Amino acid sequence: MKTLVISALGLALVGAAHGQAVRPTSPDEQAVRQVLAGTVEAWNQHDTGRYFSYFAPEAQWVNVVGMWWHNVAEHRYALDIFMQVMFNKTTHTVLREEVKMLRPDLALVRHHWKLDGWVMPDGRDMSAVSTGVMTMLMEKRNNKWLVIDGQNTSIDKQAVDPVLTMKK
Amino acid sequence: MKTLVISALGLALVGAAHGQAVRPTSPDEQAVRQVLAGTVEAWNQHDTGRYFSYFAPEAQWVNVVGMWWHNVAEHRYALDIFMQVMFNKTTHTVLREEVKMLRPDLALVRHHWKLDGWVMPDGRDMSAVSTGVMTMLMEKRNNKWLVIDGQNTSIDKQAVDPVLTMKK
Repeated sequence: MKTLVISALGLALVGAAHGQAVRPTSPDEQAVRQVLAGTVEAWNQHDTGRYFSYFAPEAQWVNVVGMWWHNVAEHRYALDIFMQVMFNKTTHTVLREEVKMLRPDLALVRHHWKLDGWVMPDGRDMSAVSTGVMTMLMEKRNNKWLVIDGQNTSIDKQAVDPVLTMKK
Repeated sequence: MKTLVISALGLALVGAAHGQAVRPTSPDEQAVRQVLAGTVEAWNQHDTGRYFSYFAPEAQWVNVVGMWWHNVAEHRYALDIFMQVMFNKTTHTVLREEVKMLRPDLALVRHHWKLDGWVMPDGRDMSAVSTGVMTMLMEKRNNKWLVIDGQNTSIDKQAVDPVLTMKK
């Protein structure tokens, strides 16, 4: 997508590319982005305790291979294993992020990511194929933003998006 | 997951399996489920006009291969093509659905699906591998529920979910 090219110039410009007015982000929008940044830092430290400190206990999650976890207990049980056996050397990078404030206390946070250093237990290096789109729903509770739901999808680099050549 | 086995017995029982009280669904919950059912019917008629009548114009969508569309115009442009070249004989079936009312006018609708009859333009039959988890966010506007965001993820049948053998 065109906007990917300019993502390094900042999110305000990405907004502009979509025809929206450039505006300063609100404190809540900043807080929401900090939650995303916090989960990414925690992931890159391979610290699941910190990672899930950003989650509400009942948050559901769908991971990149379609596992549907119904709460943080399930999600953490699985991630603690995966973090040991295949994600222990990974670095997650946010390539582009977008925030939509659905309500003053509810935000949709979507980002395009890449994951470096992913090696499967059988030795296969997954880094080259590992990009995706993650969506988090966040809610403000007692003045703190928490992830209350999320879903992740891998990008199939072989699949060609017709929208890339759509006349707009 | 255990609850999949009993999904045919009805959603009330699935709720019970997760330790929730069995309760009658509200009119809004029923309306939300009807929107999902409507999109599925429209898909199975391969009628994208009807399909997108359930969507708000600005609804974003992430499809199973990680294409991130920023509104219905993009989503429809792509789906009109895909519906012709690979989904024209498909049947989408809801295997299990769950609704979480986030607000009186905002609902999270997630379902586990299978897609039969998916044949790629090069002749490859994708039916056997085609299952996934789809999430829709719906909002009630002027007394009508609309899809305002969504994401879809394919299930990798080779991936083993540790939660299946988690002691609960």
